[in-house]
Amino acid sequence: MASNSFGSIFKLTSYGESHGLALGGIIDGCPAGVPIDESLVQIDLDRRKPGQSKITTQRKEADKVVFHSGIFEGKTTGTPIGFSIENTNQRSNDYSHIKDSYRPSHADFVYDKKYGVRDYRGGGRSSARETVARVVAGSIAKQFIAPIHIQAYVNQVGTLRLDQPYTTLDITQGEENIVRCPDPIMAEKMINYISEIKKKGDTVGGVIRCVVKHVPVGLGEPVFQKLHANLGAAMLSINAVKAFAYGSGFEGAAMFGSEHNDYFNADGTTKTNYSGGIQGGISNGMDIYFDVAFKPVATILQPYESLTTEGTLEETHGKGRHDPCVVPRAVPIVEAMAALVFADHLLMNRNTKI
Amino acid sequence: MASNSFGSIFKLTSYGESHGLALGGIIDGCPAGVPIDESLVQIDLDRRKPGQSKITTQRKEADKVVFHSGIFEGKTTGTPIGFSIENTNQRSNDYSHIKDSYRPSHADFVYDKKYGVRDYRGGGRSSARETVARVVAGSIAKQFIAPIHIQAYVNQVGTLRLDQPYTTLDITQGEENIVRCPDPIMAEKMINYISEIKKKGDTVGGVIRCVVKHVPVGLGEPVFQKLHANLGAAMLSINAVKAFAYGSGFEGAAMFGSEHNDYFNADGTTKTNYSGGIQGGISNGMDIYFDVAFKPVATILQPYESLTTEGTLEETHGKGRHDPCVVPRAVPIVEAMAALVFADHLLMNRNTKI
Amino acid sequence: MASNSFGSIFKLTSYGESHGLALGGIIDGCPAGVPIDESLVQIDLDRRKPGQSKITTQRKEADKVVFHSGIFEGKTTGTPIGFSIENTNQRSNDYSHIKDSYRPSHADFVYDKKYGVRDYRGGGRSSARETVARVVAGSIAKQFIAPIHIQAYVNQVGTLRLDQPYTTLDITQGEENIVRCPDPIMAEKMINYISEIKKKGDTVGGVIRCVVKHVPVGLGEPVFQKLHANLGAAMLSINAVKAFAYGSGFEGAAMFGSEHNDYFNADGTTKTNYSGGIQGGISNGMDIYFDVAFKPVATILQPYESLTTEGTLEETHGKGRHDPCVVPRAVPIVEAMAALVFADHLLMNRNTKI
Amino acid sequence: MASNSFGSIFKLTSYGESHGLALGGIIDGCPAGVPIDESLVQIDLDRRKPGQSKITTQRKEADKVVFHSGIFEGKTTGTPIGFSIENTNQRSNDYSHIKDSYRPSHADFVYDKKYGVRDYRGGGRSSARETVARVVAGSIAKQFIAPIHIQAYVNQVGTLRLDQPYTTLDITQGEENIVRCPDPIMAEKMINYISEIKKKGDTVGGVIRCVVKHVPVGLGEPVFQKLHANLGAAMLSINAVKAFAYGSGFEGAAMFGSEHNDYFNADGTTKTNYSGGIQGGISNGMDIYFDVAFKPVATILQPYESLTTEGTLEETHGKGRHDPCVVPRAVPIVEAMAALVFADHLLMNRNTKI
Repeated sequence: MASNSFGSIFKLTSYGESHGLALGGIIDGCPAGVPIDESLVQIDLDRRKPGQSKITTQRKEADKVVFHSGIFEGKTTGTPIGFSIENTNQRSNDYSHIKDSYRPSHADFVYDKKYGVRDYRGGGRSSARETVARVVAGSIAKQFIAPIHIQAYVNQVGTLRLDQPYTTLDITQGEENIVRCPDPIMAEKMINYISEIKKKGDTVGGVIRCVVKHVPVGLGEPVFQKLHANLGAAMLSINAVKAFAYGSGFEGAAMFGSEHNDYFNADGTTKTNYSGGIQGGISNGMDIYFDVAFKPVATILQPYESLTTEGTLEETHGKGRHDPCVVPRAVPIVEAMAALVFADHLLMNRNTKI
Repeated sequence: MASNSFGSIFKLTSYGESHGLALGGIIDGCPAGVPIDESLVQIDLDRRKPGQSKITTQRKEADKVVFHSGIFEGKTTGTPIGFSIENTNQRSNDYSHIKDSYRPSHADFVYDKKYGVRDYRGGGRSSARETVARVVAGSIAKQFIAPIHIQAYVNQVGTLRLDQPYTTLDITQGEENIVRCPDPIMAEKMINYISEIKKKGDTVGGVIRCVVKHVPVGLGEPVFQKLHANLGAAMLSINAVKAFAYGSGFEGAAMFGSEHNDYFNADGTTKTNYSGGIQGGISNGMDIYFDVAFKPVATILQPYESLTTEGTLEETHGKGRHDPCVVPRAVPIVEAMAALVFADHLLMNRNTKI
Repeated sequence: MASNSFGSIFKLTSYGESHGLALGGIIDGCPAGVPIDESLVQIDLDRRKPGQSKITTQRKEADKVVFHSGIFEGKTTGTPIGFSIENTNQRSNDYSHIKDSYRPSHADFVYDKKYGVRDYRGGGRSSARETVARVVAGSIAKQFIAPIHIQAYVNQVGTLRLDQPYTTLDITQGEENIVRCPDPIMAEKMINYISEIKKKGDTVGGVIRCVVKHVPVGLGEPVFQKLHANLGAAMLSINAVKAFAYGSGFEGAAMFGSEHNDYFNADGTTKTNYSGGIQGGISNGMDIYFDVAFKPVATILQPYESLTTEGTLEETHGKGRHDPCVVPRAVPIVEAMAALVFADHLLMNRNTKI
Repeated sequence: MASNSFGSIFKLTSYGESHGLALGGIIDGCPAGVPIDESLVQIDLDRRKPGQSKITTQRKEADKVVFHSGIFEGKTTGTPIGFSIENTNQRSNDYSHIKDSYRPSHADFVYDKKYGVRDYRGGGRSSARETVARVVAGSIAKQFIAPIHIQAYVNQVGTLRLDQPYTTLDITQGEENIVRCPDPIMAEKMINYISEIKKKGDTVGGVIRCVVKHVPVGLGEPVFQKLHANLGAAMLSINAVKAFAYGSGFEGAAMFGSEHNDYFNADGTTKTNYSGGIQGGISNGMDIYFDVAFKPVATILQPYESLTTEGTLEETHGKGRHDPCVVPRAVPIVEAMAALVFADHLLMNRNTKI
């Protein structure tokens, strides 16, 4: 099934695996005349890039994007924007041990069963390297949706969690440290925690919170394309994501209607925001905020038992260069997917003929 | 935007509001030759029906489905299945007070801003009455996907929560009581709790857990249509849903890779199932399970402040016939949406030319 | 495959066979606030209706449309418009002879091979009765696209052809006679010709020309959704259509560039219109015109050889109530499909964020 | 609107203009395990390549395709196939005269009105250079759909037309001469004719006939995705195409049902094939054949009047390197688009769960 496209009108189609010649994509449906600063795209790529700090994988990739079409004299032309990113640092031999066996909690097993063939040089299309195309497209989308502004940050790493609401934080501070947590004290704890885990060859999960400001009233379609349903699908399509919650989330399930209802101010804003800026699937102009939970990376640098393609269990020792915790690098990916959703809904939201 | 369709190949398109002539839909893409027992569809509709017990709204609707096409001599013909359900019990005057004002945490405000017009007789397309079409289509989908089996149940109402994993419960017992919780003792507590809340004119949220068994290995598409991304989108498109989590969910974020990894048995099954039956977006043959959080119903039979269309705040007292807690009636809706996702992925999962 | 939808944003999904309870459809994506005169829909249905004159089938159908949703107080609400048309005049026994055999140049054979089952009471989904839903949706689309105006007429029946260009005719006169040809003398010839053919139990083909006026510059998408590609697909999806040509059509293939080029006037209009109002797939503001060729109806009231499901040939004699020539009744169908294309392209044509 | 994708399951998304860095595309939905001979793709590209003979444009392009992903060890992996073709021979100055004016019967005028910006270095996305991506994808599709076999040839150039049916010709002989007409005598006439026209700086249209053999019974969806409707849309999306006809085409409109019906042989084949291998939109196993009419190229090397962006008319003299007749180079494009349609329909044609 053709399933490598995201969006209805502002649409990304992506291609590429961890060990091919290049990855890339096509952004189709971006209106003409949008000013594009390509250096902003590279900044987002660098926020996602491997090897950016001591708590990420030490694998190095230049991750330089090349645009092939669709941008002329600094503006979009309305034609599809093709782009590619070369794979420059492939150590295929790092992966040679997985040709004939399936790693636990990886996609090796299901890919082989589904497709009958597998590019055993790496995770193939299930590798998070795939998300590089999302970041490029999301960065273009951010420029299109302005002044809508998206900022994500790390809210939890393992058992370390920021308990205050985002409204009490200066969330832009997340970009000031390598773990991308806006509270400097918690950030330091998280960095130390991840460093310890890395030393043991283990990994840990985390939670990213994303806040979207300056959303106009009226984005979202009432039934199957509710704004939060599309945001949820976007987040759940990112590697390693296990859960999505917006507004009151799971906590809302324990509340009474009399406390959960967001009462109006006379200007149409609301006094509280348990709704998370969305009512009936449609933005109400308040901030939109949501949480995205990531499981720990499956590749651990410890001994473990894998399943051979022959159907026997064998002791293996993990190797390669992997992230001890994905959430610091996943922050721009969460933002990118959110930006794609908002770009699409801005274009979907056409209710008059004009 | 045309957004009233769900699915890529097995596709439901629905129509209808709470106060029109009828609601209904078209199921397109169901293969020919599927035996259909229409009485099973009515059973699912009755599980969703208002007025079914003392803890649901007392509004009565017959909710009888009529099939117009696509089924002949007890089997699908491969042509689209058109169906409708009449609206029989509309008390439009119950809603007359909302013509000129917006209820808090309802979609009234955003609909008016988005569309410029609103069918003020009820919630219109944002009413949960819309889900009746989902239940019909989901029930057809259940018959198509057999032997894949879907069973949902109520796991939490307000602060009352079942803490044991589904594997220690006989989850079919959920259907034995009106709150649809498979633990009889907890069920009774929940029923009493909802009854108390109803007396106060208040409402409460809850969580539904859904378990899917006998899923073949290989369903799900690797990138944007990961099986759980489609399940999440399906659940988040249901009215009042605030969160979705599968497998280890938010708890997974606090775990180490060494404890979260699901190690293989020699037959390809796994010793644990933190993955929730899905790896890299593709089913691995283990049970798929997920949680869906519902906020409390916004309509409370208490005084509250609403916003008039003129931009002033006014004291109102909620009226009408509403559910104190939606989760008992939402169980078949969750199952229906899950069934639509599996029907679609069974048909998407075509990797050879044959 | 789910293939019963037409359009990207303004989308019709239809259902129904010649011999089920009802036919109908859902129009999704029509913006809110469009004034709808339901009587205009019925007028178009009556133009398509069987039994309307001596040169059509004598089968009678009321073809009364019932709208279930999406229109409130005379305007669209932006929600899906569900509608149905009952089947009232089914003489299933007329078709009993086709249960075990395949009629030549009908879809019986291919349906049985494709689906394994067939509703043998009629043509099922391949019956032109299916087009009733197109006419309803097209008639709503016509009201949405105004002032764009669509007028089709019969240009050829068998070997009788109007050779003058549409610009020399008052094409609205087509509606003044039962064959829908705007030249009264040719119309009478065509009526007599069809009457003669009907007496012999034979049938004949024809050509419909369609003219679209007041199209703004800029409709159509450059590559795969060229305006004329979507018009062609729309027309070729109508039963019995064998060819589509716009502007200079097949004649254009014999011309030189120096004679075919449409030179500009200073106001951007062109001196000639071989382009048919479309350049590079995009409307240029000139009239759009195209021809649609229909083959003769396959059902003839004469002896012929059919193929039994057992694989033997047998002599049969055609019966039932069928059209000797479909083009008079197909005029509103051509217009309806064109209207759906223009409604969709008006909504697709969004190149700025607004 | 995102409109640069073609197909529902086997889907090409393309990008690129005549004067950007590169053109390319992504083929999504090709099943895993299809053996791919990349040299066959290059052969098709060479059949389309500019500068291939004295009767085509003398512009030279290497048109070497590079595959970035999706093919591993000579087989498809089921992941998207990304590819690009560099633009190597851009003489932007050839086009400098069109920056401030609109050429007649080109898309310059409508692009500027639609998008507000235009890459004035060339035809941009409306340039037939865009079709290079179609040929790559179509060539992959050809390898997937085997043994279905597609062969197109030139049937008409200007007023020179082959009148015999394809069944009396050895149509593979079209590849033996530079005009791609399978009758050697007619081919020579056509070559001389085009050479004469080229000398005058003029251009001429033509017709391509395409024949598809070994199609299984059952491809095509009954209503809006009839096999010939999809073929028609595919052909009409090619630059310069004005008309599409299959089977009896426009001639069918002049025939009686008694002569047009294709009577069965006992094996399910038919004695005649006016249906063109398709009944009710579904293939019946007979050859599928259709005609595609191309208008003359709009760029003539003669004086003509263009419209300035200021709204005045000015005398211009055409320059650049253009084709005097597109049909010889369009043969592989027609085949490619047909192959994409068949690949898609093979995958859509899933009527059982398996």
